[in-house]
Amino acid sequence: MKNYINQNQERFLDELSKFLAFKSISADSAFKSECLECADYLVEFFNSIDMDTQLIPTKGIPVVYAEKIIDENFPTVLIYGHYDVQPAFKEDGWDSDPFDMVIKNKKIYARGAADDKGQVFMHMKVLEFMSQNNSWPLNIKVFLEGEEEVGSTNLEDFILENKSLLESDFILISDTSIISNSQPSITAGVRGMTAMELTVKGPKVDVHSGVYGGIMDNPINVLSHIIAKVKDSDGRILIPGFYDDVIEYNESQRAQFQEVFSKMPSKDDLCSEFGLNDLLAEPGFSPYEGGSIRPTFDVVGITGGYQGEGMKIIIPNQASAKFTFRLVANQDPKKVQKQIVDYINSIAPKTLTLEFDFSENSGAAYATNLDSVYYKVAAKAMEDSFGTKCLPVMCGGSIPVASMLKKHLNKETIFLGFGLEEDNIHSPNESYGIFNMNIGIETIFNYLNSIASQSN
Amino acid sequence: MKNYINQNQERFLDELSKFLAFKSISADSAFKSECLECADYLVEFFNSIDMDTQLIPTKGIPVVYAEKIIDENFPTVLIYGHYDVQPAFKEDGWDSDPFDMVIKNKKIYARGAADDKGQVFMHMKVLEFMSQNNSWPLNIKVFLEGEEEVGSTNLEDFILENKSLLESDFILISDTSIISNSQPSITAGVRGMTAMELTVKGPKVDVHSGVYGGIMDNPINVLSHIIAKVKDSDGRILIPGFYDDVIEYNESQRAQFQEVFSKMPSKDDLCSEFGLNDLLAEPGFSPYEGGSIRPTFDVVGITGGYQGEGMKIIIPNQASAKFTFRLVANQDPKKVQKQIVDYINSIAPKTLTLEFDFSENSGAAYATNLDSVYYKVAAKAMEDSFGTKCLPVMCGGSIPVASMLKKHLNKETIFLGFGLEEDNIHSPNESYGIFNMNIGIETIFNYLNSIASQSN
Repeated sequence: MKNYINQNQERFLDELSKFLAFKSISADSAFKSECLECADYLVEFFNSIDMDTQLIPTKGIPVVYAEKIIDENFPTVLIYGHYDVQPAFKEDGWDSDPFDMVIKNKKIYARGAADDKGQVFMHMKVLEFMSQNNSWPLNIKVFLEGEEEVGSTNLEDFILENKSLLESDFILISDTSIISNSQPSITAGVRGMTAMELTVKGPKVDVHSGVYGGIMDNPINVLSHIIAKVKDSDGRILIPGFYDDVIEYNESQRAQFQEVFSKMPSKDDLCSEFGLNDLLAEPGFSPYEGGSIRPTFDVVGITGGYQGEGMKIIIPNQASAKFTFRLVANQDPKKVQKQIVDYINSIAPKTLTLEFDFSENSGAAYATNLDSVYYKVAAKAMEDSFGTKCLPVMCGGSIPVASMLKKHLNKETIFLGFGLEEDNIHSPNESYGIFNMNIGIETIFNYLNSIASQSN
Repeated sequence: MKNYINQNQERFLDELSKFLAFKSISADSAFKSECLECADYLVEFFNSIDMDTQLIPTKGIPVVYAEKIIDENFPTVLIYGHYDVQPAFKEDGWDSDPFDMVIKNKKIYARGAADDKGQVFMHMKVLEFMSQNNSWPLNIKVFLEGEEEVGSTNLEDFILENKSLLESDFILISDTSIISNSQPSITAGVRGMTAMELTVKGPKVDVHSGVYGGIMDNPINVLSHIIAKVKDSDGRILIPGFYDDVIEYNESQRAQFQEVFSKMPSKDDLCSEFGLNDLLAEPGFSPYEGGSIRPTFDVVGITGGYQGEGMKIIIPNQASAKFTFRLVANQDPKKVQKQIVDYINSIAPKTLTLEFDFSENSGAAYATNLDSVYYKVAAKAMEDSFGTKCLPVMCGGSIPVASMLKKHLNKETIFLGFGLEEDNIHSPNESYGIFNMNIGIETIFNYLNSIASQSN
């Protein structure tokens, strides 16, 4: 494989530049035709390497699906990626046209270079190699979405309508990063989220705080009491049953996470960078554990009463706040929502009225089973490629597609991504290292072969 | 006196209409000359009744001062009132020109009818009568402010610069209301206030709630914890020492207040009018006591983070809230401010930084001593005029001039006002009952004579 990469390097970059040239911006309907052209390009490619390929329509931008079924007794991998990109315009601060790939300092610069076309491209080249050698070590299914950057609006419907098509033994996604080019890592967990808005309704109209202060309850005070009772000031959530399903990691797993945390900015560095006196740390956990393997409760916005200059002597008629709960495996967002509502109703003063709004999307967390063969073999493949032990990274953010796939397909997902934090995804001058592309192709190839040989 | 009122009724109303015709709107500098003309009118009047009169300049609108010193051994009353009025324009919803007095249903309609020209006028007629009979029962000092409706900006300086001029035995103010024309009352207490803004500073910039949730503390959560710890959900303020100086009323005094409360809307009426499930009641006190003789803590406004449509997954960089503490006698606003800051600093998590802003005005409460001769004689005068027992009303709002006079002159203030809630002060169609004017003149006259005879 290494030879193939070396011999074809120029062709690879030339082909990648064509893939990156499509302005497949899903957020702007003006670019829908470019999204479709990009999908056609992919269909043509997968056909050219002898895979059974379909362009599957959705209510929005279609899904590209390709498969190579060798033997029903072989394991089957389902590869997910996306061919749409974030919006990008030269005037946003790009040094060059975002859709005209440039190579500088051994990096590819273009919108989608790392997120996710460049990483999808690695899989394309692995499959091309298998096709050219007519040596498919396992059954391959690929599905590439065109709406990831707009929240995968139609993905859940697509999965539900194509469950048998998507049947597999495990799922492989390259849309994440490694710690650094000298420290390979695999994203082994992402948090889920449930978001809500809580409104506390007070007197029908603002009333005079002199006349009614002490007589009528105050929606802001009540809302503050609720917030304070949802999470204590140490960072522990006080909702009964909230932690019941929270995954617990053993000491050796936590030691592995600690290796990752030790490479991240220190407490002092974070405090000084962000102007904080101290970090938060849930009792029994480090701040970085609090930010990854533990659920959290944060108020992302609050509003109520008078907010202009000076003072207005009122009891306001209402106050509201937007809450996000970051969830971890194996919390069920629906169950958690019910716990939240029951708890808040039980602790809130009975003087005023509460309104809950759960209309925002929620999603479960996803954690890769670190003891599964799919993870272990992936970590070994990374280690072989990089020559360094691969670490599992527990991520504080969410990758909604992960929990969606878990929910409906119920298979292990391996996040075998090769980006770097410096890649500027979603920002001007997005880039992807040529080193990362090449080592990605090599690692994915070795990984799929290892999985195949493991199951023989 | 009654005869004098009857015989001169038409003249009184004619004179009052002239006084009310001055557009002495202190809030709008375009009307400054009308304020000055009104002051000149008053100077002329007090000169005409043989009082020593001065127009005393301030940095703003001047004070009208008049005195009649009969005998240094006689008691001296200091009468305070104001000749400026709230802005008023016909197009605000007045049925007639606000500066062209109209009489309808035995009521005087004009801006300032009740607040406060009509009530100042009662004193003018009492003094005119004393002058005509050359029978001054006590020493009289009158000072009439022209900036009450703009927060008495220059009053404190005036008082400090004229302390000896203002020396007296007690202070008399007619700028309040009675419960009804069949239920006389005296405002016997007003609350003070200290207002502040508290800002909790979090990370320098909004950060991602996935990446940093559980690692960095959240300014909204912290602010909510502070608010929840300042006052418990029962309405009791938790700041150490906060209640130390709070005046305590005995059972017979509380029974008198209860008589007043029993004439106010019931709990059910208030809840249904304002859409509340229940009122607040500090343990050991009724809601109306909570709204008058007890201090309170209300958040009048709160803001932080994202407040638009939908959700934004951030930990916001700051959150702030505007607080008002309503104080009662004998709390010292400065002492309370220090208690607040010390307490909040002691309970706030040490992760983030707090900023306090006390730039808003604060003022002490004022409570009339119900056992003082000045109050008792006033209550008796009311009872004699109305034929009904007079009740002390403890008011939830603030009258800043009361605490200012108390602070610098340290004399008892009696609020002998004759307005009604239906008078629409500060609103279109302000009115004042002719009955109220007449009974006010009679009562004030009798009151001053009784005080004089008491001290013989």
